Amino acid sequence: MKQLENVTIVGLGLIGGSFALSLKDNNLVKHIIGTDVNHVHEEKALELGLVDDVLPLKEAVLKSDLVVLAIPVSACAQLLPLILDMVTTQMVIDTGSTKKNILKSVVNHSNRKRYLPTHPMWGTEFNGPEAAVHGAFKGKAVVLCDKEESDIDVVDTVESIYKTIGMNIVNMHADAHDVHVAYVSHISHITSFALANTVLEKETKEEAIFALASAGFESTVRLAKSPSTMWVPILMQNKENVLDVLTEHISQLEKFKTCLETQNWKGLTELMQNANRISKVLKK
Amino acid sequence: MKQLENVTIVGLGLIGGSFALSLKDNNLVKHIIGTDVNHVHEEKALELGLVDDVLPLKEAVLKSDLVVLAIPVSACAQLLPLILDMVTTQMVIDTGSTKKNILKSVVNHSNRKRYLPTHPMWGTEFNGPEAAVHGAFKGKAVVLCDKEESDIDVVDTVESIYKTIGMNIVNMHADAHDVHVAYVSHISHITSFALANTVLEKETKEEAIFALASAGFESTVRLAKSPSTMWVPILMQNKENVLDVLTEHISQLEKFKTCLETQNWKGLTELMQNANRISKVLKK
Repeated sequence: MKQLENVTIVGLGLIGGSFALSLKDNNLVKHIIGTDVNHVHEEKALELGLVDDVLPLKEAVLKSDLVVLAIPVSACAQLLPLILDMVTTQMVIDTGSTKKNILKSVVNHSNRKRYLPTHPMWGTEFNGPEAAVHGAFKGKAVVLCDKEESDIDVVDTVESIYKTIGMNIVNMHADAHDVHVAYVSHISHITSFALANTVLEKETKEEAIFALASAGFESTVRLAKSPSTMWVPILMQNKENVLDVLTEHISQLEKFKTCLETQNWKGLTELMQNANRISKVLKK
Repeated sequence: MKQLENVTIVGLGLIGGSFALSLKDNNLVKHIIGTDVNHVHEEKALELGLVDDVLPLKEAVLKSDLVVLAIPVSACAQLLPLILDMVTTQMVIDTGSTKKNILKSVVNHSNRKRYLPTHPMWGTEFNGPEAAVHGAFKGKAVVLCDKEESDIDVVDTVESIYKTIGMNIVNMHADAHDVHVAYVSHISHITSFALANTVLEKETKEEAIFALASAGFESTVRLAKSPSTMWVPILMQNKENVLDVLTEHISQLEKFKTCLETQNWKGLTELMQNANRISKVLKK
């Protein structure tokens, strides 16, 4: 792939910042422009060397070969049509955790084909430009949605970028994407938030949590540190799928509760042994 | 602390094996004897150098200065009184994740004072002698229960051992221990098992789980790989506390569900922001 001249990153947080670093580290672009509604983030991103320059959105888009939206999915659905309005030959991608709703915002846009919906499946519980890390996306999956709806040069370039930064490309329709991420990502966040609330509600002795918290607890509750500004929009946009999964999850927890209440240890054993199967699926 | 001559490890799995390695690595003992109902584990532990010798239980106990029980809590409650029957000057500890029930098994035993109930708060989702690792307990908490009920030489020696292998000692009554671990450990395992079952039940496309599973999913579902042979006895013995926490957890999940169903985004934001407080408690 030919090195790009200018790339604009819209949103200089964990994902935008880490994506900028991956582009630079792999010599995929000469010049990275950053833009963010939060000027503190813009200054920080410059200071950290995540971007070479900071410009107002319109100016940045007009100068760029590629525009990367790395903002909450609600803002993305709002901004994407306005960005496509400015586009001539530019390529546009987003990195959002939902796809159907964002796509709906540009379904009849005359520049729709310059846009490719993507979802690089990586993140941490931290946020802001300071959270950006080198080599973030390596070895992880990236979902490209409905790529037959995008121009071939857009698809080729974006695939090439994601491959170069070490991601495994998975092609999926937007609807299927939203169903699957409800299972492998969104429900994990809800259980983690709810687990934190459970402990904070009932375990009044914070000292005890602090003293005893083990690796197991930390790993299940880690995602509860994630920002609501990112996660409320995701759950809003994927409400139906998330409600399906959440209802099933509550019913699975009720099974554990019933086994405990009725001292059905055989049943409890079976529930755990069934859950153990997840290790095979993950290791395949 | 004077180096011990002989220590017996009863149960040569993840905890017993890792504890043996920690004793050796810190020159706390000259000779480690292993014993396990599973002879394959005994042979493997010898082969891996976790123990110097394998002996039948009685012979091992009689030879030892210290006996460490690292077996499922149900087996522990059964075996502990029999071991105290053999004891003259030996010290005995267990490493179980529940304490009240195990203590009940020896409450009136004439050698009760030779026993100190302990719970080193470390583990992984793996099991068996092959899962044993060096430096396992370093920086983690160990709970010592009701230490005023144990002989002072036992308390001194065991404290010294745990400090030397790098653990932070927390003193607690057995009842309080069982309440707190329900929050910071047992509920995490149940949510993880239930999450795995949710995904396996509804996400019929295993390929999709495999392709998309992100770090967030892996960390929340990791504990679902834990063995039922260990976890059914723990939940049995801590049934009342676990049911309390589980009931609260289901009600916390219902709050998320209600917010989604009623599109109460302000409420959802508040739930997440409340959960975010966990990071302060963990970092304190």
